[in-house]
Parts: sequence; structure tokens; C-alpha cells
Amino acid sequence: MWSTIDITMMSRAIMLARRGRYTTRPNPNVGCVIVDANGVIVGEGWHQRAGGPHAEVHAWRMAGDKARGATAYVTLEPCSHYGRTPPCANGLIAQGLKRVVIAMTDPNPQVAGRGIAMLQAAGIDVCSGLLADEARKLNPGFLSRMERGRPYVTVKLAASLDGKTALANGESKWITGPAAREDVQRLRALSCAVVTGIDTVLADDPSMNVRYQQLGYLQQQLDEDELIQPLRVVLDSRCRMPATARMLSLPGQTLLVSCQAYPAEFMRTLPANVQCLQLPDVAGRIDLSALLQYLATSCNSVLVEAGATLCGAFISNALADELVLYQAPKILGASGRNLLQLPQYQQLSDLPSLQLIEQRKVGVDNRLTLKLGD
Amino acid sequence: MWSTIDITMMSRAIMLARRGRYTTRPNPNVGCVIVDANGVIVGEGWHQRAGGPHAEVHAWRMAGDKARGATAYVTLEPCSHYGRTPPCANGLIAQGLKRVVIAMTDPNPQVAGRGIAMLQAAGIDVCSGLLADEARKLNPGFLSRMERGRPYVTVKLAASLDGKTALANGESKWITGPAAREDVQRLRALSCAVVTGIDTVLADDPSMNVRYQQLGYLQQQLDEDELIQPLRVVLDSRCRMPATARMLSLPGQTLLVSCQAYPAEFMRTLPANVQCLQLPDVAGRIDLSALLQYLATSCNSVLVEAGATLCGAFISNALADELVLYQAPKILGASGRNLLQLPQYQQLSDLPSLQLIEQRKVGVDNRLTLKLGD
Ligand SMILES: NC(=O)c1ccc[n+]([C@@H]2O[C@H](COP(=O)([O-])OP(=O)(O)OC[C@H]3O[C@@H](n4cnc5c(N)ncnc54)[C@H](OP(=O)(O)O)[C@@H]3O)[C@@H](O)[C@H]2O)c1
Ligand SMILES: NC(=O)c1ccc[n+]([C@@H]2O[C@H](COP(=O)([O-])OP(=O)(O)OC[C@H]3O[C@@H](n4cnc5c(N)ncnc54)[C@H](OP(=O)(O)O)[C@@H]3O)[C@@H](O)[C@H]2O)c1
Repeated sequence: MWSTIDITMMSRAIMLARRGRYTTRPNPNVGCVIVDANGVIVGEGWHQRAGGPHAEVHAWRMAGDKARGATAYVTLEPCSHYGRTPPCANGLIAQGLKRVVIAMTDPNPQVAGRGIAMLQAAGIDVCSGLLADEARKLNPGFLSRMERGRPYVTVKLAASLDGKTALANGESKWITGPAAREDVQRLRALSCAVVTGIDTVLADDPSMNVRYQQLGYLQQQLDEDELIQPLRVVLDSRCRMPATARMLSLPGQTLLVSCQAYPAEFMRTLPANVQCLQLPDVAGRIDLSALLQYLATSCNSVLVEAGATLCGAFISNALADELVLYQAPKILGASGRNLLQLPQYQQLSDLPSLQLIEQRKVGVDNRLTLKLGD
Repeated sequence: MWSTIDITMMSRAIMLARRGRYTTRPNPNVGCVIVDANGVIVGEGWHQRAGGPHAEVHAWRMAGDKARGATAYVTLEPCSHYGRTPPCANGLIAQGLKRVVIAMTDPNPQVAGRGIAMLQAAGIDVCSGLLADEARKLNPGFLSRMERGRPYVTVKLAASLDGKTALANGESKWITGPAAREDVQRLRALSCAVVTGIDTVLADDPSMNVRYQQLGYLQQQLDEDELIQPLRVVLDSRCRMPATARMLSLPGQTLLVSCQAYPAEFMRTLPANVQCLQLPDVAGRIDLSALLQYLATSCNSVLVEAGATLCGAFISNALADELVLYQAPKILGASGRNLLQLPQYQQLSDLPSLQLIEQRKVGVDNRLTLKLGD
């Protein structure tokens, strides 16, 4: 059904889409390649940032007259509505494209297929479904938001081989090596929000931001002014957040989430880039489903960087999609602090279902990526 | 200094030596290749089992007259003493070899160099040290016995990603998958002795033997009658071993080690293939150094397959050389049972030093090999 040219060009469009992965949020990553009748690429582009031109626009601008009679490969169904930019389906029609190949339809069930219908109504030959699985992998967060109404949640963990995060006395600097810590900076740079628990704030007073200087090889791909700071989210049911916490004075947004109102006095000390959100509780603690529903308005992807309590809560409530585990080649022994607080399971068949999808060395440590759920 | 032929031939001798690794114990693995003046292999062999011919004998028998004027490549200095077989140095001289290339000298400091001296005294050109590091890796256990007076100790561990071996209620069948359990069978087949703690015996009543049918691909390399059952060793300071324990009625030797005498009544129930050994204690428990010193008389390699207590004791007493850790892609949570009992360290710099030397997938699980100590 698909020709070699089709597959090659869509692969290239996917590769181009990926270049936007640190910068398009909350928009999806999209790539486009325009190919003439001789199989020559005459235009290409990718979505670079929210509010900027869509991938198709970059591609047809580059193609100019050569778009007429050509084929466009797009990783996501062209949009059919007026947003910050006019609909791309209109543009493709106006540019005289003859054929449009689409990897996947719009994930929003309410609009899915409208872009395709517009193109077809204009007499354009439209095919879709080419490399759909690969195209889906470009946008796990955006798709999760559209399809499930919540962000894609990654829980980041770091531990010894025997699953300990600190010695009995709390000593934990550093279990993992500098390369793993740098890798965490890149994970943050990919995330729309970084979520932690109040007890981590009270114990470590973390910054929870991305430090451009610590991005390693990513500095070659990303300029400092392109970096978007993730939203910092602190889960603090009982309003224990100290006004002096380091993250409150850092650039970028901070969101304090509680189940009670913060005292007016505390509120007055907060700078303008700190917001407070009150959410319902479940057994005295923030309702994590409600939190994710709230975050879905602006966040594709959420990184949970917290202690055993909150990480365990996301997992045992089936609200985590992925674990990234950095394993240091160390053993701390039974008295060390545990990695994850989970319910006391009675049978191995009750355990959360996990699937190892990637593993690699990061410096001296191992980095495992696991998918949760079936 | 070494020609390409030298390196090629010694590599082959090392490869041949490896074929004996399940069968030569307590002898070392040795390989030999005899090459004529044209660089053609005229004879080769490896040591196959204790009491059988040494590698050199196999090689010169195959070479016959062609050994005259040829070069022999041997992975270990030829022996110079009469044991169950006459000294190989004599044989090489009698066969008229012109040159002998040796990877490493005899590890026994008392005899090291004697074989070389005998060959040189007979006018043979002797070079040694070619691929010495690779040759050493053939015989970690034998070398440890000769050089340190104790076996090479491997601690086998199996746990979840968060370092748990069982649920709080003890449920642990099966954390790891069938491929990992088969791999453990091969680890046992490589070991002269398998050591466990009395609490594992009381909890699981394990067999601690090698089941030929569960050796997987190793069945293609090893006939059932070549399989040597490892010595089963139970550490049982206070003579709690039940006379009904399953392993006591299995073929192969069992050694019960205690700090007290077993009651005469218990002794009378024991079959002939079960021995008892009394050793001094350290703080009420078997002195592990004394145990290893004892085992060194007959064991190159010891596999510790025990619970968190005994595995932790080998590690924290710096008596473990290697860890083999099977990691299942599961999380059990903080309430699960811990992998290793270690002293309560105060600083990360006090932790045992570990180095990851190999890692691979075994079925769904990860198998990590780590060296302990500096
Ligand atoms: N190894 C690592 O990667 C790593 C990373 C981060 C932190 N840490 C360490 O972890 C330790 C803190 O861990 P922790 O487990 O005590 O605390 P935590 O997981 O960081 O925070 C737990 C707190 O979050 C609040 N929370 C709000 N809603 C919740 C919900 N639905 N479910 C669960 N918790 C909710 C609760 O306090 P309220 O009830 O008051 O809201 C709870 O006590 C620190 O020592 C830190 O150094 C390690
Ligand atoms: N996940 C796995 O790979 C694995 C493997 C094996 C066992 N297990 C599980 O581990 C559990 C048993 O573990 P455990 O830690 O209780 O027992 P263990 O490590 O198997 O045995 C510990 C016992 O060995 C004896 N011992 C003798 N000399 C010792 C010394 N120098 N240092 C330490 N111990 C010495 C001690 O009893 P005395 O003082 O009476 O001599 C001690 O209580 C069982 O539930 C079993 O299923 C898991």
C-alpha cells in the first residue's frame, strides 16, 4: 500500500517533528515534508513553538511554487480551525497540493477527520495511517491530554541496586553520579510540569528548575532563550510550605496545591509568579486525579520527582504512565531508606504491571525506562 | 614482541581451555595449541577433567611427529611435578618442541617458574605473559585458592527493582522468570560448592542441586554424566538442621557446618554423603574466613545462595568477590523483604565498593554482574 518514498518521507517528517520536543508545548510536535512528482524534497519544516507557524506552513513557504501538484507528508492531521494561525488544511488547498499523506488523525475526537474532510472536499487525494505508531510516540503527553483528559505522567526515581535512596541517617548526596543528574535536567526540560511532595521540600529545599549549564549535550541543540522552565508544583495538603523555600524566589512559575486555604499572611509574601490552588482531598491528601485534570489544561507531560510517599501514591493509584529509574551500582543494605511506599500486597499477581522498554548506561549508573499498566 | 600468529594461537588455546569449565574442577582450565614452522596447527587440546590428561598431552598426542621443532602455546605454565600424571614439562622436552609460549606462570608461588626453568634447561625457547589477563580470567577460582588460600566467592541475589525479595507475607514465587532460574542452574553447575544459611533451609527446604533438565542450552555442551554436583554447604551455627531436610536425601555431597557438635542421634540419621564440620564462631556465628579456608582445600569457586543475612555477612566481611543480581521488572514497595542486611553505614563513602562488569537480559529479567572490592 505505501511506497518506499512514502515511508522514507514520513520517517523524515517524524524526525523533523522531534526537533520541536523541547519547545512546542503545550502544542504537539509535528513535522511536514513536501515532495514533488520526481520524489525530490522541495519543502520541509516542523512546528517550533506555540504561537509560531505550524509545520505545514514552514514546508510550503520553503516549497513556494513547487508545492503545486506535489505530495505533503504530515505527521498529524492538518488543523481545520482558526487558532492563533489560520487552518493548515486551507493553506494546503491554496498551495495546490495534489496528495496529502497523514500519519495520524487529530487526537481530539471532536475534531478528528475534519481536516481530512476539508482536503478531500477540495479534491486532494488524502491517505492516512502511515507510521501511525511512530507518530504517536512523538506526542505521548499531548495525546494523553486529548484522549484521557490528563497529562502523561513520568515518575523519576533514583536508588541503589537494593532499592535504597538514602542511608538510615538520611545521607544521600550523591547516590547517582553527575551524568545521571545531568540527565534529570534534560528530563525536566522535556516536561511541562515537575511535581514534588511537601516533605521533599521540607527535607531538601530543592530548586526544581532547569539549569541550562547542566543540560550537557542538549546545549548544542537548544539555545538558552529557547528553554522553557517547567511549572513547579508542590503538593502540600496542609499548607506546610515555608515562605522561605528556595523555589519561590526563582524565575518560572510555581504552583502550591493544598486542600486548605493558605493563611492570608503567607499569601502576601508570595511573589507574582507563585500561584495557589485548592483541590479536594482523598483521605486528607490532595486528590491526584483532580490535580491531573487541572494540569491537563496546560500540561502535556508531568514529571514526578518526589519521595517514596508521593511517587508510591501516583503508582498505586494507577496515575503514573512511566517510570524512569536511575540505578547506582551501590548497595546500601536493609537499613537504608526505601524507594517506594506501596500498599501491602498479598500476592505477586496484585503488583502494578511493569514493562521494561529501554535501558542504557548514563555515566556509571543504569537508566531504566518502564511502562506502567497494561 | 608478539606476532599475529602468537596472538591468534594463544587466543585459540584460551578458547579451548574454556571448554573444560564445567568439568576440570578442582583443577584449572588449561588449553594448548601446537603450531608447526609454517604456522599450521598440528595439535591442540584442553584439560577435560581432573585425573585425565593435561591439555599439553592431548595436543602432542594429536601432533605426533609434527611436534618436533614446533611451537606450543599453553595458557598456563606446564607442570613440573609428578601428580596423577607425569610432568608436562618433561613431555614437551621429549616431544622435541622448539619453542613454548605461556600465557601465565603457575599461580602457586612455591612452584611458579619451575616448569619454565625445566624447559629452558633443555634448550627450549620459552616466552611468557602473552594474553596473561585473558588467561587469568579462565580460572578466577583456582587462582584465588592458590594466591589467597580461599575460593572465589560469588553471591547470587534476586530481587525486584526496588530491592525486595518477597512480599511482607513472605510470598516470593516467582519474582524472577523461568529464564533467570535456568541461569541459576548454570551458575550452580559452574560452582564447586553452593553455600546457604540455615534460615533459608528452614523457610524453603531447597534442593540446592543442579537439575540437568533445567540447564537449557548447556545441555548441548555437556552430557548428563559429565555434570558434577556442587557440594551443598549449610551454615547452621546452632545445629538447627532438620533431619528431614530435602537436600540430605539427594545424590551429591552435603556439608553441615556448625559451631557446636550435632547430637549423636541426629548424626545417626545422616546418610553417608552428608558430612558435618565444626568451626569456630565469631559472635556466635560461623567464622566465614575459617569456612572459606576449609573449602579452599577442594573448592575453586563458591556460590552463596542465601537470604539477606548470610549474603550480607559475606559482603560486609569483604569475603565476596562478585555479585550476580537478577533484577525482575517489578516493584514490591517498602513493606517487602529486603535484599541485603548490611551494617548501618554513616556515610556513602563507607559503602562496599562495587563495579558493574557485565549486564544482560535473561528472559524478562536483567542480570547484573558486579565485582566487589578495589
Ligand atoms: N532518590 C530520589 O530520587 C528522591 C527524590 C526526591 C526526594 N527524595 C527524598 O525523599 C524524602 C521525602 O520523601 P517522602 O516520601 O517523605 O515525601 P514526598 O513523597 O516528597 O512527599 C510526601 C508528602 O506529599 C504530600 N501529599 C499531598 N498529596 C498527596 C497524595 N495524594 N499522596 C501522597 N502524598 C501527598 C503529603 O504531605 P501532606 O499530607 O502534608 O500534603 C505527603 O506527606 C526526602 O528525604 C528526599 O530527600 C529522594
Ligand atoms: N531472593 C533470593 O535470591 C533468595 C535466596 C535464598 C533465600 N531467600 C529467602 O531468604 C529468607 C531467609 O533469609 P535469612 O536472611 O533469614 O537467612 P539466611 O541468610 O538464609 O540464613 C541466615 C542464617 O545463617 C546462619 N549463619 C551461620 N553463620 C553465619 C554468619 N557468619 N553470618 C550470618 N549468618 C550465619 C545464621 O543462623 P545460625 O546463627 O543459627 O547459624 C543466620 O540466621 C528465606 O525466606 C528465603 O526464601 C531468598
